[in-house]
Amino acid sequence: MPTRSFTDLYVEVQQFYARQMRQLDERKLEAYAETFTDDAEFGHTPGREPARTRAGIVADLREFHKKFENDPVQRRHWFNMIDLEPQDDGSMRSTCYALVVTTRTAGAPTIAPSCVVNDVIVRGEDGNLLLKSRRVDHDQPF
Amino acid sequence: MPTRSFTDLYVEVQQFYARQMRQLDERKLEAYAETFTDDAEFGHTPGREPARTRAGIVADLREFHKKFENDPVQRRHWFNMIDLEPQDDGSMRSTCYALVVTTRTAGAPTIAPSCVVNDVIVRGEDGNLLLKSRRVDHDQPF
Amino acid sequence: MPTRSFTDLYVEVQQFYARQMRQLDERKLEAYAETFTDDAEFGHTPGREPARTRAGIVADLREFHKKFENDPVQRRHWFNMIDLEPQDDGSMRSTCYALVVTTRTAGAPTIAPSCVVNDVIVRGEDGNLLLKSRRVDHDQPF
Repeated sequence: MPTRSFTDLYVEVQQFYARQMRQLDERKLEAYAETFTDDAEFGHTPGREPARTRAGIVADLREFHKKFENDPVQRRHWFNMIDLEPQDDGSMRSTCYALVVTTRTAGAPTIAPSCVVNDVIVRGEDGNLLLKSRRVDHDQPF
Repeated sequence: MPTRSFTDLYVEVQQFYARQMRQLDERKLEAYAETFTDDAEFGHTPGREPARTRAGIVADLREFHKKFENDPVQRRHWFNMIDLEPQDDGSMRSTCYALVVTTRTAGAPTIAPSCVVNDVIVRGEDGNLLLKSRRVDHDQPF
Repeated sequence: MPTRSFTDLYVEVQQFYARQMRQLDERKLEAYAETFTDDAEFGHTPGREPARTRAGIVADLREFHKKFENDPVQRRHWFNMIDLEPQDDGSMRSTCYALVVTTRTAGAPTIAPSCVVNDVIVRGEDGNLLLKSRRVDHDQPF
């Protein structure tokens, strides 16, 4: 496997986030879960037990999305301000800002919450990036 | 022409969007239109016929901006979460999220609409990127 | 010092902004000031005299942040749409859009003001990027 420069890795992470989060926003929950390692941990909401394993992530997101069943929304996750720290073991720590843009059939989009995403990213056997863990810290309450 | 890496292309697209959209936000409509190929198609608003050719894009945007004549605003187009797919023919498909930030003389900026931008990007004879087509999907109504 | 490609520089600036602005958002004012050259000029608010030198920047920010003493907030500075222009002397001009996301203990975050950031970036003796000057233009009033 070729050694990648910091520049290559940084762009790869931006591309990874773009596709990954659009999959979530399009409710492709299985595709989203496949961007995690099979033993991954994903904590997206404070006070809620983190989901574990791909199957666990899908089940958790199905449960989470039930609240939109009678409240049709289009959500868009914006990630930006990526601070990437490649580690000696080949993994990467990525810390970035996130905003969730939620559009309903009427009114202006709501833009909330403001979050900080803490990811550990590894490279899978096929060479693609995978999340080993994701912890989302919410700015509210603080 | 040198072969460009995915990393190079991704950054080139980010730089292209930054300058292109600032031109639009500064109402440099001719400069904005020149970022399209001469036979380009640009559909920015659902239910409105796409503009075609550079001259058509300028005319369409002049018409569109009339609504701000008695409503002075500073708009800022934010593009992010770029999912870039280089194609075999040398063109690129780019799908990204967009938000329009509109500042008026009083009050907080409005941030709407939330959109998905679907671009086909080609390289012009001078080596610069050009839009072959842009279709903007709005999240509202959905 | 190796010659860096435009791609490398663009990513380096993105990484620089991400870490720099998180330091400001975490109120690490000294660390933020150290991302400027010692003779830097920093104008963040129209009508307010720009701060000069690192010590001056820290003092100015301490003063500025006093307004939050009885108004606990978590701010997040979002920079995006970076238009980067490397100069012949090795410095770079960077123009980007900025939004400040402010979360309080209750209610949705406020997203204001919308700004344009005008940076002159140089490379310090240790090889890291530093701001020679930053001028923030606010969209409101315009």
